[in-house]
Amino acid sequence: MFTFTPIGYVRSPYSDVKQVPRGPGARHDAEGTLEIDEKFAPGLQDIEGFSHLFVVWVFNRSEGYELLGTPPTDNREHGVFATRSPYRPNPIGLTTVEILGRDGRNVRVRGVDMLDGTPILDIKPYLSSIPAEKLKLGWFGEAEARRAAEKKS
Amino acid sequence: MFTFTPIGYVRSPYSDVKQVPRGPGARHDAEGTLEIDEKFAPGLQDIEGFSHLFVVWVFNRSEGYELLGTPPTDNREHGVFATRSPYRPNPIGLTTVEILGRDGRNVRVRGVDMLDGTPILDIKPYLSSIPAEKLKLGWFGEAEARRAAEKKS
Repeated sequence: MFTFTPIGYVRSPYSDVKQVPRGPGARHDAEGTLEIDEKFAPGLQDIEGFSHLFVVWVFNRSEGYELLGTPPTDNREHGVFATRSPYRPNPIGLTTVEILGRDGRNVRVRGVDMLDGTPILDIKPYLSSIPAEKLKLGWFGEAEARRAAEKKS
Repeated sequence: MFTFTPIGYVRSPYSDVKQVPRGPGARHDAEGTLEIDEKFAPGLQDIEGFSHLFVVWVFNRSEGYELLGTPPTDNREHGVFATRSPYRPNPIGLTTVEILGRDGRNVRVRGVDMLDGTPILDIKPYLSSIPAEKLKLGWFGEAEARRAAEKKS
């Protein structure tokens, strides 16, 4: 077992999961702040030179887990590790955000999909991307294709 | 404080950190296996439809943390949250891997940079990329530019 203590908290416009855009075509351009504990603030040095960050956080309001579940983007069941469900064996979230700027221990970002007060475990620089044309999106892509076909017919 | 239990372990060709390619131009094409606990195996359903995964894991052999450190890719000091250093307040690692196939509870992948036996906390589908032309790589890009200029002169 591994025990982690938050390095800070997310300030977000969302106070309830119902407010977070979900499902097909959801846009994540909400702005928020990563408020890092004073104690860890020196660790932010030079972070503002990057355009994007990975934020590793805790789904602290979700309880229990489901190994199979039906995501909002599909009407079929999938394994939890093939989805972004909050009901995971370890309720860890991962979000890519764009850096807008840093004021001391506060990093202003775009693209938050976490609730206000979400505990942050770690922040990492986003260094490279898999080119979009190399990505296969599994059930996610298939569900999108089905929706597109339904719209046409 | 949050406590997590591994969902499985990485099988990797690396048994010592010295074997893991690091620094400028390091290539990560080592193949390995994500061995997921039998208990959580149903959560892998449909994962093989994706080309890439995020693996969230624990630097279980690193002790303590440094808020400022000099990474192998530079000769200047940077904040830990602007680097991939293992000496983090919460020693959590994040690796993008390519899926080669799945045999029951074992997911064969390319791109492991973890040591053999590394505990896995979570696996998530890789759904979208930031286009390379939109990425700013901060000190990492600057250090690369300096190295390129030194080579020329």
